[in-house]
Amino acid sequence: MPQIAAYAAQSADQPLVPHTIERRTPNSKDIAINIRYCGVCHSDLHMIRNEWGSWGETLYPCVPGHEIIGTVVAVGKEVTKFGVGDTVGVGCMVDSCGQCSPCQAGEENYCEQGFTLTYNSKDDYGHTFGGYSAHIVVDEQFVLSIAHKNNLAAVAPLLCAGITMYSPLRHWNVDSTKKIGIVGLGGLGHMGVKLAHAMGAHVVLFTTSPNKATEAKNLGADEVVISKDPGQMNAHAASLDFIINTVAVPHNLDNYLSLLKKDGILCLVGIPTTPHPSSHVFNLVAKRRAIVGSLIGGIKETQEMLDFCAKHNIVSDIEIIPMKDINQAYERMLNNDVKYRFVIDMQTLRDER
Amino acid sequence: MPQIAAYAAQSADQPLVPHTIERRTPNSKDIAINIRYCGVCHSDLHMIRNEWGSWGETLYPCVPGHEIIGTVVAVGKEVTKFGVGDTVGVGCMVDSCGQCSPCQAGEENYCEQGFTLTYNSKDDYGHTFGGYSAHIVVDEQFVLSIAHKNNLAAVAPLLCAGITMYSPLRHWNVDSTKKIGIVGLGGLGHMGVKLAHAMGAHVVLFTTSPNKATEAKNLGADEVVISKDPGQMNAHAASLDFIINTVAVPHNLDNYLSLLKKDGILCLVGIPTTPHPSSHVFNLVAKRRAIVGSLIGGIKETQEMLDFCAKHNIVSDIEIIPMKDINQAYERMLNNDVKYRFVIDMQTLRDER
Repeated sequence: MPQIAAYAAQSADQPLVPHTIERRTPNSKDIAINIRYCGVCHSDLHMIRNEWGSWGETLYPCVPGHEIIGTVVAVGKEVTKFGVGDTVGVGCMVDSCGQCSPCQAGEENYCEQGFTLTYNSKDDYGHTFGGYSAHIVVDEQFVLSIAHKNNLAAVAPLLCAGITMYSPLRHWNVDSTKKIGIVGLGGLGHMGVKLAHAMGAHVVLFTTSPNKATEAKNLGADEVVISKDPGQMNAHAASLDFIINTVAVPHNLDNYLSLLKKDGILCLVGIPTTPHPSSHVFNLVAKRRAIVGSLIGGIKETQEMLDFCAKHNIVSDIEIIPMKDINQAYERMLNNDVKYRFVIDMQTLRDER
Repeated sequence: MPQIAAYAAQSADQPLVPHTIERRTPNSKDIAINIRYCGVCHSDLHMIRNEWGSWGETLYPCVPGHEIIGTVVAVGKEVTKFGVGDTVGVGCMVDSCGQCSPCQAGEENYCEQGFTLTYNSKDDYGHTFGGYSAHIVVDEQFVLSIAHKNNLAAVAPLLCAGITMYSPLRHWNVDSTKKIGIVGLGGLGHMGVKLAHAMGAHVVLFTTSPNKATEAKNLGADEVVISKDPGQMNAHAASLDFIINTVAVPHNLDNYLSLLKKDGILCLVGIPTTPHPSSHVFNLVAKRRAIVGSLIGGIKETQEMLDFCAKHNIVSDIEIIPMKDINQAYERMLNNDVKYRFVIDMQTLRDER
């Protein structure tokens, strides 16, 4: 099997280092992709440090990366969707059972057997390796078409951060009649602001950082609320239809529930390693409010999101880094020192070898 | 104003004692009702003991009771819906703003100004007094028509327990295609089993008490699960569409979230005085599950519920008590020694005086 340049963690307490992996020779329905860009997601850091043990232990060596943009370099003989030279994307999933009710409905992200993660899932070849590598081989059903013509590095984060925000906005029918909230202005939140704005919603961005207000408005927020200021929070009491909370550290959800009108929904997409403090039941009951969760999106919806973003000229705000700077990028990410996503230029990996 | 026999608590640490209240002379849109039966709700006990301070302090003297069945004895000159001699009901609300969006939609239970509780709300005459009294005067818009011909004492609990369960079952579209759960077999839970069964759902009753299994099946449950038995719980993993949780003491919700399929909903109707332990966000995100709350129901929906119950011969299972035994009934209620609702025969109050 072909030997592929990659970066991997060898254990939970080690930084990423250069590594060589094998990829399968493309099967009849596979696409072989030369990876050009890979986004750096918070999940990558959680996973290499084995911080999500309850979902599944990290399998080492671990090659992270699930925001992949590349060029098709070979296709299996039964492939119909793509040809050599196409620009394509791969997100968080590379396979699913295909048989269960969610899979049949195009919601492979809720596959009852558990979908195959782009990295850290067992497969026929050992376990999956992600996009911090020069090359990947994926079944065509899990490969996305990219309509963007320029700035492809900034398209990469759409494959995880973009769909994570787009799916709940669509599922809960956000449109120009809705006042919606986005909590947190990071990799996910800044995409949420852009997407919800493009859908026509009145967007309120909640942040603990007063210095993010101007940027949030430039991204498309109609209002910015400093969530530590009870006066600013109370001014929006019982007025929002829908809030997506991206914050993955435990915090008081009652402060946000109180801002929802009747039948309002607080959607959690950030997953803290320990639970949020308990919400008071009365805060739900009093206005028939809901707390829900949402996990990325299905392949069909991911394609719809990519096409929506191409049409509306939406990409992520990014900082491009060379592969060798990944460990430093993680440190900066932990210090919130990124606007708003690092993307690795994978040519720098090829140039290393 | 007319002097009316009642039972009241004079303070949080005192039992209910005989008391006399005043009721207004009926206004042009009012109905005057001779109360025949009043159900005994857990809320009555919470309220007389001032255990819900965060919603609103208890106003003393407190005359509880919001599951009222009676006979119309006088009507205001503009009343159109009712005539003298009609059998009618009054539930948890006796007024609302009538102007806000929920009120306009017939969901007075979510009135943005807060509806007027049948007891313990301030009104033009001081504060409202509930159904532990011989007589009540209510605006016709908040009076329900009772189609049941027999067993009227057992109809009383429909006005709170019945609608509390019916409203979420209808709002979340429970029907014969759904597998639903009811947690707890008390005043609320036993109504939930009967209603969901009548709607055609496959009903699973969750209880901590093995000795309730036979009764639950007699009430209409298709299956009974002892919630302390992990094996029995796991047998239903990811299989339920909708669960209504009636338990008002803090407990682990993750055990129930895990039983919901994709897009499943856990609806809380029991309100503990302190929050439930936190749920893990992953349990929501993994299958786009929801935790929601629901609070009684609107007048229009309450009428629909009463008509549905009359059509399907549904009433509450009750034990009738005389007014003077109310304090003893509360003690038995705290010990779960009631199947499933006490109802006061208000003729016994008249006979006392």
